[in-house]
Amino acid sequence: MTDYKYFEDFAVGQSTETPSVEMTEAEIIEFAKQFDPQPMHIDPVAAQHITGGLIASGWHTASMTMRLLVTAANYHPAPGTVGLGFEHLKWMKSVRPGDKIRLRLDVLGVRDSSSKPGWGIVTNLFTTFNQHDEPVQEMKTSIIVPKRNK
Amino acid sequence: MTDYKYFEDFAVGQSTETPSVEMTEAEIIEFAKQFDPQPMHIDPVAAQHITGGLIASGWHTASMTMRLLVTAANYHPAPGTVGLGFEHLKWMKSVRPGDKIRLRLDVLGVRDSSSKPGWGIVTNLFTTFNQHDEPVQEMKTSIIVPKRNK
Repeated sequence: MTDYKYFEDFAVGQSTETPSVEMTEAEIIEFAKQFDPQPMHIDPVAAQHITGGLIASGWHTASMTMRLLVTAANYHPAPGTVGLGFEHLKWMKSVRPGDKIRLRLDVLGVRDSSSKPGWGIVTNLFTTFNQHDEPVQEMKTSIIVPKRNK
Repeated sequence: MTDYKYFEDFAVGQSTETPSVEMTEAEIIEFAKQFDPQPMHIDPVAAQHITGGLIASGWHTASMTMRLLVTAANYHPAPGTVGLGFEHLKWMKSVRPGDKIRLRLDVLGVRDSSSKPGWGIVTNLFTTFNQHDEPVQEMKTSIIVPKRNK
């Protein structure tokens, strides 16, 4: 059974980290051929001159981050939860073949919803790190979550 | 030959629209199985109860938007151009199997870089529409672009 998280279960300072997953050269090229066919993502020879070797599409990193969130972060806001959008999405460092990335999820803020009684707003920071503990992607997002005790 | 755009080639009010591309049920499920394996994205029966049918992962819409930008928008900032990150990324409406999406690119702002002489900053709005002309995704981003005449 999924252990859903209600508004009362979130608190500022909570931090969760996932195991890491490798970004392989084959996957980087396959993703980019489909969604981001630029030389630095799909052509190892051309990429050598442009970016010192192949780099993953930022959208591949973002999608893999979503995979970590769904499959490995034990992040299960209660049914009815809706995302309110991203306040920012930044790519800070290139992801290269063989890099192992993981996700850290930090709760930045919790507050009652002023417009929807019985619900609250949780602001999260999602940071994706490589195997050298360098942040490669950061996004901040808010969700509106039902309270367990309305 | 690619016709690169330098800072001088951008002006507020410029607007470009791409042809549209269909999001098929098979592609929606395939993407989500890999990156966003939640029932409303991968299981048509469960999705019927949750969201009235399958909906695409927002990251699939974002990745397909990138594909439109790279392959169909004739958007070629000059070599050296670097993205400064997204100021926001919003998903306004679900994308469903059979929806045809297209990208509109609007130039919102152009200004000289204060820190890097010979370069300028261009702020773009990327809006993804469905076949009913409803916006399904919006993102705002700034890039730093070299000037042709430094």
